[in-house]
Amino acid sequence: MEKIDSYPFYVEPFHVDMTGRMFLGILGNHLLNAAGNHSQRRGWGIGALNETRHTWVLSRLSVELEEMPRQYEHGTVETWVESVIKLFTNRNFAIRREDGTPYGYARSIWAMIDLETRKPCDLFSLYDGDILNYIVSEEENVCPIAPHGRFRFRDSRWVRTIETRYSDVDINGHINSIKYIEHILDLFPIECFRDRRLQRFEIAYKAESYFGDTLSFYMQPVDENETDVEVRKNVTAESEGEIVCQARVRFR
Amino acid sequence: MEKIDSYPFYVEPFHVDMTGRMFLGILGNHLLNAAGNHSQRRGWGIGALNETRHTWVLSRLSVELEEMPRQYEHGTVETWVESVIKLFTNRNFAIRREDGTPYGYARSIWAMIDLETRKPCDLFSLYDGDILNYIVSEEENVCPIAPHGRFRFRDSRWVRTIETRYSDVDINGHINSIKYIEHILDLFPIECFRDRRLQRFEIAYKAESYFGDTLSFYMQPVDENETDVEVRKNVTAESEGEIVCQARVRFR
Repeated sequence: MEKIDSYPFYVEPFHVDMTGRMFLGILGNHLLNAAGNHSQRRGWGIGALNETRHTWVLSRLSVELEEMPRQYEHGTVETWVESVIKLFTNRNFAIRREDGTPYGYARSIWAMIDLETRKPCDLFSLYDGDILNYIVSEEENVCPIAPHGRFRFRDSRWVRTIETRYSDVDINGHINSIKYIEHILDLFPIECFRDRRLQRFEIAYKAESYFGDTLSFYMQPVDENETDVEVRKNVTAESEGEIVCQARVRFR
Repeated sequence: MEKIDSYPFYVEPFHVDMTGRMFLGILGNHLLNAAGNHSQRRGWGIGALNETRHTWVLSRLSVELEEMPRQYEHGTVETWVESVIKLFTNRNFAIRREDGTPYGYARSIWAMIDLETRKPCDLFSLYDGDILNYIVSEEENVCPIAPHGRFRFRDSRWVRTIETRYSDVDINGHINSIKYIEHILDLFPIECFRDRRLQRFEIAYKAESYFGDTLSFYMQPVDENETDVEVRKNVTAESEGEIVCQARVRFR
């Protein structure tokens, strides 16, 4: 089987923002579907893993775009495994137009966890290390965007607290990874989307949150183009809560 | 060309709720896409209408389900025009499994408006009444669910006010029709979705709302299974605001 998969997408009318460009959350959904399909077709998808009581967990996602796909455009998400480092795997993505030119790229890091212990597992032993047969090196297929960055929150400012609701929750009872992206982008003034363009979005998932948790959002400007966002659950007058995810958003 | 179109769908992992069933907003999106494709293929879709400065506007949508499609299932949305009544057209939907058995049905009412005057247009004169060539009578294809109901709000109770945000807004700068469905269902206690099943959802779109409008939600129980919801924009201490939409939600 080929090492790289190609997942087609079409930009539906209700999937675009006020400028006619696809919402990042929708693109994120396509990326996760492409990743899921790629694993599934090679025998280590969620379905197979469930039988051995394991599952994939998304740890990092960084997306960088020259341009966001527009309404009615067709494109493809290519995905491949760049490397495996025992407990983590790096999976890359190229988001391409029909003519093959890139809209942009993405990087992600995944762990496989044991569903009982919730601890990460050794990927080299997974299905006899079969994943190693599918590694595509940087020489074979380049992902020309910066690696995931590091976050340091020193003087972030509280901006919003929300209750989690029915539409936030996935089949595992967790707040859906895509919904964090939507809630984070919803913090920014509309001018950022109307007059500027999202250039890069990074997110690090730190802990699960569940229906009923409150989510508090803190923003910290990095420079005039870049802002870091921290999401904490169940912050109270007595408690700083727990970090759920951290994100970096850059507009051009 | 056939009178009835069939639009395939697949239930993606991020499109299901905590019970593994598709979110109604996702189904609504499929219905609207099916409707858009059906019009487009026959020459009176949004694209063609834009050239003559007209567009379709959704006025009512009622969905009734035996069962909601589940994760990884494949299905189809069939859609057809049931009737045309000068300023409005009734479009029906059947939501079917792969084996043809129905998950459920939906009814909708659409007007075509002039983009300059924002007033409804005579559908009999649209493209020489071409739409009349595609009417499918009740004898030919039945839609066995009750017609749209009427709303009477007498003692509704305010439950929530939200600011509209980036992810709520569509390419026309309006709050997206699907987002109202999500916000309305988010008002209900999680038990309604966990322990019961959504049986019927009706919505009547009354006025557009725009980015920056606030939306206030009012609930009025009809009986133990049914609740009406009214959404008003820009309610203040001095003003009752304006009705944006009204919905009826029934759980079984």
